[in-house]
Parts: sequence; C-alpha cells; structure tokens
Amino acid sequence: MHTPIRTSAPGSMMLLGEHAVLHGHHALVCALNRRIHVMLSPRSDREIHITSSLGRLELTLDTIEPKEPLAFVLGAVAQRKGDLKSGFDLTVQSEFTHKAGLGSSAAVTVATTAALGLWLDEKVEEESVLRASVAIIQDIQGLGSGADAAASVYGGILLYRAKPLKVMKLGAVHPVTLVYSGSKKPTAEVVRLVEAAHAKQPATYDRIYELMGHSAEEAAAAIERGDWQSVGGLLNINQGLMDAIGVCDGKLAGIVYALRKDPGILGAKISGSGLGDCVIGLGRARNEAFSYDQLPTAMASEGLVIGEQQPV
Amino acid sequence: MHTPIRTSAPGSMMLLGEHAVLHGHHALVCALNRRIHVMLSPRSDREIHITSSLGRLELTLDTIEPKEPLAFVLGAVAQRKGDLKSGFDLTVQSEFTHKAGLGSSAAVTVATTAALGLWLDEKVEEESVLRASVAIIQDIQGLGSGADAAASVYGGILLYRAKPLKVMKLGAVHPVTLVYSGSKKPTAEVVRLVEAAHAKQPATYDRIYELMGHSAEEAAAAIERGDWQSVGGLLNINQGLMDAIGVCDGKLAGIVYALRKDPGILGAKISGSGLGDCVIGLGRARNEAFSYDQLPTAMASEGLVIGEQQPV
Repeated sequence: MHTPIRTSAPGSMMLLGEHAVLHGHHALVCALNRRIHVMLSPRSDREIHITSSLGRLELTLDTIEPKEPLAFVLGAVAQRKGDLKSGFDLTVQSEFTHKAGLGSSAAVTVATTAALGLWLDEKVEEESVLRASVAIIQDIQGLGSGADAAASVYGGILLYRAKPLKVMKLGAVHPVTLVYSGSKKPTAEVVRLVEAAHAKQPATYDRIYELMGHSAEEAAAAIERGDWQSVGGLLNINQGLMDAIGVCDGKLAGIVYALRKDPGILGAKISGSGLGDCVIGLGRARNEAFSYDQLPTAMASEGLVIGEQQPV
Repeated sequence: MHTPIRTSAPGSMMLLGEHAVLHGHHALVCALNRRIHVMLSPRSDREIHITSSLGRLELTLDTIEPKEPLAFVLGAVAQRKGDLKSGFDLTVQSEFTHKAGLGSSAAVTVATTAALGLWLDEKVEEESVLRASVAIIQDIQGLGSGADAAASVYGGILLYRAKPLKVMKLGAVHPVTLVYSGSKKPTAEVVRLVEAAHAKQPATYDRIYELMGHSAEEAAAAIERGDWQSVGGLLNINQGLMDAIGVCDGKLAGIVYALRKDPGILGAKISGSGLGDCVIGLGRARNEAFSYDQLPTAMASEGLVIGEQQPV
C-alpha cells in the first residue's frame, strides 16, 4: 500500500463584488476557517470508492461522470480520467455547517484536484490547481467566477478578477459576523434573475457592476493600509448596490440593519448572490440579544494545504 | 379697496435623483394635488397682516425679515421689500396634511412670489418666479436644488437640473401610493450626513450621483414612451442607490419591500432626502391589509395658478 495522500482547502465567502465579478470586474473574497479534507489511498484495481458525509459511492474508472450528490468530487476525477492508471479510495471530511454553502463546492473541488495531481506526481502549483478547479466548477454549474476557488487555493483575503486572471493576496484578516437568513435560492437561479433585469436596463446595470468592481479595488487598498473602517463603509455602500440590482429582500435588509446597529460592526451586506443565504458584518457583533442565527466562522489566512494534517 | 390677488401652487414629491440633483445631475420631480392658496389684499398703510394655519402675524414693511414659523412667506416679502410702496393682508390656506413636508415650503414661496409680482404689475413668468423662489428657499435653508419649486411652478412630472437650469415637463402623470414612515429628519441634517460620507468616499459617491442623474434621464425617456414598468424598475434600482449613500433605514426598507409585494405597485423607493419621511410606490396599492400610513395624494398636472379659485 502507498501512503495516503492528504489535502485540505478552506471554504470562502464574498466580501464585495459578487455579480460584478461575472462581468469582468474585481471582487473581494476571503477564505474561512472551515475546511474540507480529502484523503486519497491508491488501489491496485480500477475501483473508486468515495466516502463522504454526502454519501458513499462505489464505481469504476470506466464509468465515472459528475453526478449529484458528489458532482464536484466526481467532476475533478473525471477531468483526470485519461491520466489515471488505477482506482483509489477517497475520503472527504467536511468541517462545514450544512446551513450555508460558504464555498464548500469550490473547496472540495480544489482539495480533490490537488490530491489527484499529487498522486500523478505532478508539481502541484496554486495557479494550475485554480485553473483546473474553475474549469470543473464552470462545467458542472454552467457558471462561476472562480473567486471561491481562488480563496480555497490561496487563503486570506483576495482581490480577484476572472479574465484576465488576477489574484492579489492581502496580508491581513479581520473578525467577521456571519448571519444565515434562513433560506437560500440557488446561485444559478439568482444569476438568471439578475441577467434578465440587466437586459432591461443594460447601461445602468453595467455602471453598477463597474462601481462594485471599483469598490473592491478601493477596499483592497484600504485593507493594505489597515483602514477597516473604510472597508466597513464600502460594505454598506455595496449593500445598496446589491439592493439596486434586485438581490436583497425584506429579511436580508432586516438582518443588515440589525447588524449595523451593533457597536462591534463596521459595515454589513449580503454575502453571495443574494435573495437568501448569508449577511456578513465586518467585526464581531457585541450585542448578545442579537436574535438572528449566527454561523460561528472566521476569516483564515490558510489556503490549500498538502500533506499530513488532522481534521478538526 | 383693490380686488384681492389670488394665486395657488401645488406641493411636490421627488421621484428620482434627490441628493444627485444637489451635485448638478438630473432629477425627476412631480407636482401633487395638494395646493397652497395665497390671497393678497393691498392696504393703504405700511402694515402687513399674515393669516395662516401656522400662525397670525402683524408687522410692518419696515420690520420685515424671514422668521419661523412663516419664514418662506416673509422671505418672499423681504425679497421685494424695496419695491413695495404699501402694506397688505395676506391669507395662506393649505390643503396639506401636517404629516409630511411634500414641498409645502416651496409651494408657499412660489405662490407668494407670484402674488407679489402680480401686485407690482409685473409680467409674472414661470422662469422668473422659479428663479426668485429658489433664491428665497436657498437663502432660508442654506441649500436647495429648486426641484420642488420647479414642480410648484410648472406642475406635472419634470426632468429638472439646477445648473444650468433645465426644466422639461413630461406630458403624463401616473397613480402613486405615498406612505409616511412616521418620522422625518430635517433635509439639511440629512444632506450634512451624506456630505460627510461623500467626503470619505468621493469617487464612489460621485459615481452613484451620476448614476442617479442618468436614471432620471432614462425614466424621463420611459415616461415619454408610456413605459411605466421601466419607471418602476428605475425606482427600485434607485432605492438601492439611496441605500448605498446611507439614507435608508430599517423602517423605510420595510415599507419599500411591503409596497413591492403589492400587485398594484410597479416599483418603490424613498422620496426625498431619506432617513425618514415618505416612501413612494408607483401605482395604486391594492392590498387593503397594507398596514402602513398612506397619505391620500396624487400627481397633478397643474402648476402655479393665477386668478380666482376656491380653496378645496
């Protein structure tokens, strides 16, 4: 038996520029302290046995194709199908809550892609893992900026642009408060709704996207000079821009305004595509009477990790 | 005794571009079916007797200066002080609810300015009444775009720009639903808060103002082609932009989202400087269970009227 190959990658969360990043603008994304761990043990036959909290699956190298509930793992394997000479056992362990996405699909794609590359004796480089992961994600979802995959690969807070690819890692993290709204509309569905609205007011939406991208750049500059107050202000401004493109609702707005009343919060906005999912507050909420459902999470500097490590 | 001189002018409400209009961009403003009526009866002495629902005041031509609670009436008189040879009795009657401003200051300024011009045997032209009224308002308030005065003079829906002055009257009105939020922060105070935030993010705010002005132009074009659905969409977009510059709050957002759920409403946003005051829904709310405080009002084509008329 070979030594098992171990990798892990963090989940992620959007700070600024979601939606705009799909139109070529900058976004600000960060890695979280919730990770997905992958362990790959080579087999001598052509069997692939996958064990994860989402299910247990047995198949062979010859029948592999991306399918729910393990679409991203299977997508990563399918991408390397032609290079694989034998099967393997793959164990996926997640530190994620089931309540919110928080980039778990991107994290598992990145961790699996890296594990397969290591097994194939390749030099596993950050940019190549990112590009391969984004291709898998876009293939399965039909869309995706790759910002979440970039955070999973590089960790920390990133100023990210998809085309041409730009990843600028910022050297600091900050406490955050993450509140789940109680429901989530699938990202692809929200993107379709926004695109339909975009088609009705193209010039206005394009200007808003530009402004979101511009804000992400301004926030990156503020982070570099340690000015988190300005980052909070930019979060507030961008909450309005998210509202302007139609992805806010009464529930989300209620959480945003409640968070902003907390003395520990510098700014608050929807994180992600909107119409549900999470609201992020920059800073640690101090108000214990805060009645919404906080997800215990934090930004993390660590991205993709290769080698021995123990899941939490 | 001379025949009394009678004028009346409508109140107004902002549809799009408040705040942006203070920075040279276009706004969309409309006149309302609530009017202020002024009756001026010349006297042979130098006394001025003013009767209004805000109070009764006796003074002389030689002691006049703008003072609360009749600052706008007195401001209009003070502006013509040098031209007046004798005193007068002035009666001000208002069809306004006390709940919301709805441009009543601008309306009384316009109606009084016109009445004084008529008494002085001048040719009372719309643009000269507008310019004189805006000077009075800015003198008293320390700021003011003049959009409300323009709606009081011209009536209907106007695409308005302060400098260089542009007033384009659009040939249609539409049902609206106006909801009072229960409180109002003075406009000058809100403008100061926004200016302080503007100073922290000048480039971002400037772009948002531009976008607001651009939206007002787009909405004017949509009104001209009878496309009220698009006007509603632009109201929704601009609600987000108002939120982005920090003049929304939880109460206002709650009203906005409640209005948008109503099948009769094409779009909804704050009307006016924000942080209180009113929310406007384009269309007539059908939902009888709607729990907020609706102000019974409508857009009106009629602007400044000179001559005999009976207050409602």
